[in-house]
Amino acid sequence: MIDVGILGATGLVGQRFIELLKKHPWFKISKLAASERSVSKKYWEIGKWKLIGELPREIADEVVVSPDPAEMDDIPLVFSALPSDVAGPIEAKFAQAGKIVVSNAASHRMDPFVPILNPEANSDHIQLVDKQRKKYGWKGAILTNPNCTTAVLTLSLKPLLDEFGLRNVIVTSMQAVSGAGYPGVPSMDIIDNIIPYIKDEERKVEVETKKILGHVERVADFSVSASCNRVPTIDGHMESVFIETKKKCPPEKALEAFSTFTAEPQRLKLPSAPEKPVIVRLEEDRPQPRLDRLEGNGMAVVVGRVRGDPVFKSKGLKYMALGHNTIRGAAGCAVLIAELLREKGYIE
Amino acid sequence: MIDVGILGATGLVGQRFIELLKKHPWFKISKLAASERSVSKKYWEIGKWKLIGELPREIADEVVVSPDPAEMDDIPLVFSALPSDVAGPIEAKFAQAGKIVVSNAASHRMDPFVPILNPEANSDHIQLVDKQRKKYGWKGAILTNPNCTTAVLTLSLKPLLDEFGLRNVIVTSMQAVSGAGYPGVPSMDIIDNIIPYIKDEERKVEVETKKILGHVERVADFSVSASCNRVPTIDGHMESVFIETKKKCPPEKALEAFSTFTAEPQRLKLPSAPEKPVIVRLEEDRPQPRLDRLEGNGMAVVVGRVRGDPVFKSKGLKYMALGHNTIRGAAGCAVLIAELLREKGYIE
Amino acid sequence: MIDVGILGATGLVGQRFIELLKKHPWFKISKLAASERSVSKKYWEIGKWKLIGELPREIADEVVVSPDPAEMDDIPLVFSALPSDVAGPIEAKFAQAGKIVVSNAASHRMDPFVPILNPEANSDHIQLVDKQRKKYGWKGAILTNPNCTTAVLTLSLKPLLDEFGLRNVIVTSMQAVSGAGYPGVPSMDIIDNIIPYIKDEERKVEVETKKILGHVERVADFSVSASCNRVPTIDGHMESVFIETKKKCPPEKALEAFSTFTAEPQRLKLPSAPEKPVIVRLEEDRPQPRLDRLEGNGMAVVVGRVRGDPVFKSKGLKYMALGHNTIRGAAGCAVLIAELLREKGYIE
Amino acid sequence: MIDVGILGATGLVGQRFIELLKKHPWFKISKLAASERSVSKKYWEIGKWKLIGELPREIADEVVVSPDPAEMDDIPLVFSALPSDVAGPIEAKFAQAGKIVVSNAASHRMDPFVPILNPEANSDHIQLVDKQRKKYGWKGAILTNPNCTTAVLTLSLKPLLDEFGLRNVIVTSMQAVSGAGYPGVPSMDIIDNIIPYIKDEERKVEVETKKILGHVERVADFSVSASCNRVPTIDGHMESVFIETKKKCPPEKALEAFSTFTAEPQRLKLPSAPEKPVIVRLEEDRPQPRLDRLEGNGMAVVVGRVRGDPVFKSKGLKYMALGHNTIRGAAGCAVLIAELLREKGYIE
Repeated sequence: MIDVGILGATGLVGQRFIELLKKHPWFKISKLAASERSVSKKYWEIGKWKLIGELPREIADEVVVSPDPAEMDDIPLVFSALPSDVAGPIEAKFAQAGKIVVSNAASHRMDPFVPILNPEANSDHIQLVDKQRKKYGWKGAILTNPNCTTAVLTLSLKPLLDEFGLRNVIVTSMQAVSGAGYPGVPSMDIIDNIIPYIKDEERKVEVETKKILGHVERVADFSVSASCNRVPTIDGHMESVFIETKKKCPPEKALEAFSTFTAEPQRLKLPSAPEKPVIVRLEEDRPQPRLDRLEGNGMAVVVGRVRGDPVFKSKGLKYMALGHNTIRGAAGCAVLIAELLREKGYIE
Repeated sequence: MIDVGILGATGLVGQRFIELLKKHPWFKISKLAASERSVSKKYWEIGKWKLIGELPREIADEVVVSPDPAEMDDIPLVFSALPSDVAGPIEAKFAQAGKIVVSNAASHRMDPFVPILNPEANSDHIQLVDKQRKKYGWKGAILTNPNCTTAVLTLSLKPLLDEFGLRNVIVTSMQAVSGAGYPGVPSMDIIDNIIPYIKDEERKVEVETKKILGHVERVADFSVSASCNRVPTIDGHMESVFIETKKKCPPEKALEAFSTFTAEPQRLKLPSAPEKPVIVRLEEDRPQPRLDRLEGNGMAVVVGRVRGDPVFKSKGLKYMALGHNTIRGAAGCAVLIAELLREKGYIE
Repeated sequence: MIDVGILGATGLVGQRFIELLKKHPWFKISKLAASERSVSKKYWEIGKWKLIGELPREIADEVVVSPDPAEMDDIPLVFSALPSDVAGPIEAKFAQAGKIVVSNAASHRMDPFVPILNPEANSDHIQLVDKQRKKYGWKGAILTNPNCTTAVLTLSLKPLLDEFGLRNVIVTSMQAVSGAGYPGVPSMDIIDNIIPYIKDEERKVEVETKKILGHVERVADFSVSASCNRVPTIDGHMESVFIETKKKCPPEKALEAFSTFTAEPQRLKLPSAPEKPVIVRLEEDRPQPRLDRLEGNGMAVVVGRVRGDPVFKSKGLKYMALGHNTIRGAAGCAVLIAELLREKGYIE
Repeated sequence: MIDVGILGATGLVGQRFIELLKKHPWFKISKLAASERSVSKKYWEIGKWKLIGELPREIADEVVVSPDPAEMDDIPLVFSALPSDVAGPIEAKFAQAGKIVVSNAASHRMDPFVPILNPEANSDHIQLVDKQRKKYGWKGAILTNPNCTTAVLTLSLKPLLDEFGLRNVIVTSMQAVSGAGYPGVPSMDIIDNIIPYIKDEERKVEVETKKILGHVERVADFSVSASCNRVPTIDGHMESVFIETKKKCPPEKALEAFSTFTAEPQRLKLPSAPEKPVIVRLEEDRPQPRLDRLEGNGMAVVVGRVRGDPVFKSKGLKYMALGHNTIRGAAGCAVLIAELLREKGYIE
């Protein structure tokens, strides 16, 4: 078992890390770190457990430490759910101290030496670790998972990119409130309502998608345009996607590309890899967040309503994609990255 | 005062007609018609009033008649909120009997001799009435309002079409549950959920938009692609719109086009015409259904987040549009059409 | 394995039966029956699967039969999720044909020869089966589970009744929409709303509670008053309970009575019996439907906010109780009853 | 016109004060005060307008001052929406400086020299002002409106108290999220959920009700027991009320007592007084928050489901009561108090 630390362990994504790691076959939660006001308190004293099911007793009694590598001496692997405004320097310190940091924070995502990994879409970008170490002189490394909306989008796009090539991607998201953390979205703002704005989200989707689906050295050559909305659902980001492809893309071929798609995490049988990374629903009214968000233990993306498009015509397609935003779109993706790193020998 | 009848008076759109007409300066509700099982009952006996505020006493006691022109002898104008699967022949019978029928049903919308009128967008299509009468030998006429999503979309597109021309329109809708009538969407399907499918809706948006914004004799030459979703809001359809224009379309010029737009209903000062048909919000997080759906008494469309688009670049734009689906998108639009008809001398 | 049939297999409670029985250690789904319009169709052709997770393939392809004992020749046990307005005579026919019928329908509940069983509260009422057979000349028998609200209430009251006696029970329920089945509550009625009325529900709670917690021959001598409300939650009925007891009832003793309570299903280790039938939460803001409804696989009742009461003073108490309405309050309770029957030798 | 100031003008109740006063026939908003971080900014710069409809231009441009009497020299009347943890000393300073303070804060409510006024229920308590001035040596005075839940409850109880006397009151509330202010309740906590706890609320309901409905010198002699819950509605507190009366209380007599009830605000025709303070709905499923909360411009309490009670029998009754929590339960009640004070000569 590999001992792991969690930075930012008290927020909603931190709680998902605890939930996903508490019975993990390879990783063992060894230290929980959080901001100054939580340090030296027991975990249960700090805040409320917001997930369904009980917080494990042994985690509840764990004393929270500060997010400092000195507190995590023998721990080779650290998951970061730190807020993006503080994550940058803290994560760098951990990398310098020889730790592998897998981060959900946006701080380092656009650094050309830091990969944004969505393992089924771009596991080859893992090679950036070597360049990163050379560049920054770190013994450890920083790897990031994508923004939640981007994670769902890129996983659904990958089979299409491989098969048909991509020229343009237009996406409107309908995002669950858990994406804003806790306390996050005030109920006064979202009951019987939609908020057509999520700070920085559209830019993240537009640039991260091109980095993830590009070559390790240069971003993809297609364009991405996003319109991001908050809607009154608890978990699960829905995306209405329109694409223009390079080759002709009849819906039935797209369906085949989606449903036959597998990638390295499946071949390596990583513990968190869903059997099918992209699940196709043929019913006319699926996917739906409440019914489908937990497919593949929250690690699969469910696509549906795959159909032709009057704008991009024979080289166009529209479809819906759904993924669990705090699992595939955050903590679950980070855990999958760590599993890949371990299997590739980056963590011992 | 002109006596009017309402066909399909007991459904949700029928109730909106009653609400909008009960204090109308030109029209007076004279007869309420509904399906066989309601005939000869008093209105209050049939079903529940689903709108906020009280049902007026005099309407409550009105005896419901069958949707037959013989029941509406001296009534020149009839509003139809009939279900589309029965509306066709009934409305034709009323037109033949010399009545002006303004219909919310889809049955006749795609008939090339029947206009779909969204008065601020295409009041000139009213001229189809003469051709329709010639074609069918009717003394009356049938006019239709657009599908709810189309009504909001076309009103927001009209200023842009006039100023920049349109090549492509891509729209993802987030539609309120009232759009499905009553009982409509089961709560089990929509609490903490999104349904990415509304029967026939995408096709309606795609074809009606081109008819409304086209020349009276031929549909518009741009393409429209729609993806329609039901979300947990009560009233107000939100639309995430991406367009490709013919001329360059910088956001600040689009904002000007939106905010200076007025049309014939405003010039004629029709009672239901909103002072500004398109209201621009500059805040980063507006429009929002709960806060903005009643702008212009539910007859205005509120646009916001007008911004550039990485896919269509200098000839592209993205924005959000919101309109009240049972007012601007149904009963309110029909009443505005009737006001236009009266002002133009079609009803006396 | 005992072959079982499900009557009314296509509704929401019917679907819960399928979900709970598809991997049951003792029972095997052998026949699915539903109303005339579904007969001879495959199960998947009839309607939508409304629960989370996939419908098992073998159930999907099952051909639906009519609810007639002739269709279930070798089946000794039948679960009924029939609507109460048709359940009465159909269930009687099955009992006459020698089947054990465990029913969620209200039809026979108030028959003095038919027990309403909530196994942890009144497993001794099972003895009514013999009297019932004598009275009606049936080889089979009918047993019922309580109304959903009553199931939660009586399980929470049982430890208090045993320890302190009861004089009066006052309960206000906040009930989830799944309690009304599918399509059930229209979304127009419940988004941003509460409906302070559920047909027949208050009467059911008031009479069933006294039957269940009474002696097998006569109803309990305390009074029950209920006020039932529908609220916008998917699953889980919440109940705000005020009681007057016979003996003094300090909150800390009530807490002890709740948390030490077990009953026959636990002693017999029935497969569906929750380890602890009543789970106590000590946090000031629990139980909560979304977080706690699946405790004990939906078979436990969660109580919290146990506190003194200014009206009934030292012989009073108030507390909140929560239970899963379609599991503990319907299908799950019926399955538990069947397990008890099998263990007691009524089914072979 | 009387110039008025608003303390705590930026919160949700502060915004309701602005909305209710912006077109008031007697009062004119003259100064807006808020906490230190808002002082010297224009109102629109501080935060978002959370109510439907536009913030009036002249208010938007108003410069916010600190809550200090020196800032409100010529202003005789001040409304306070300050948070209860800071309101106490600030309001006392205003009273000392000769201002009449009508406060929504809880700080002074239980001071025996400060009245909690719900004008239709206890306008005679206004006489406490003289004793208060004598006691504290103030030229001004402090008056408070009740807690939101108490305001609705006491208005519904008053006609019953007058007619039948009261022994016991048991109430379970289902409270809207606006009651917690903004940002208030996190959406993660309330979508598909109920929170069975609102800090301090039950105690407030229990003690304030007895003070308001008691004699000016001593609290009422009946007992009150409350159980308070947060539910997913935007506005409107619902209350499920069970009472024990002193005299027999048949439902039809209670209905009469409710519907014939009027009080001093109606007799004085105060501008904010609803024509009927208690509105009775006879339908089996009313009141409902979304449909009924704005009755009497949000100042009426709507009661329904008035029925007998098996616990308290002929001297018992159960019913539902609904009122708008930020209008009747907060700002609207305070404005009505001020109108009463002006009519009685306390403000000139």
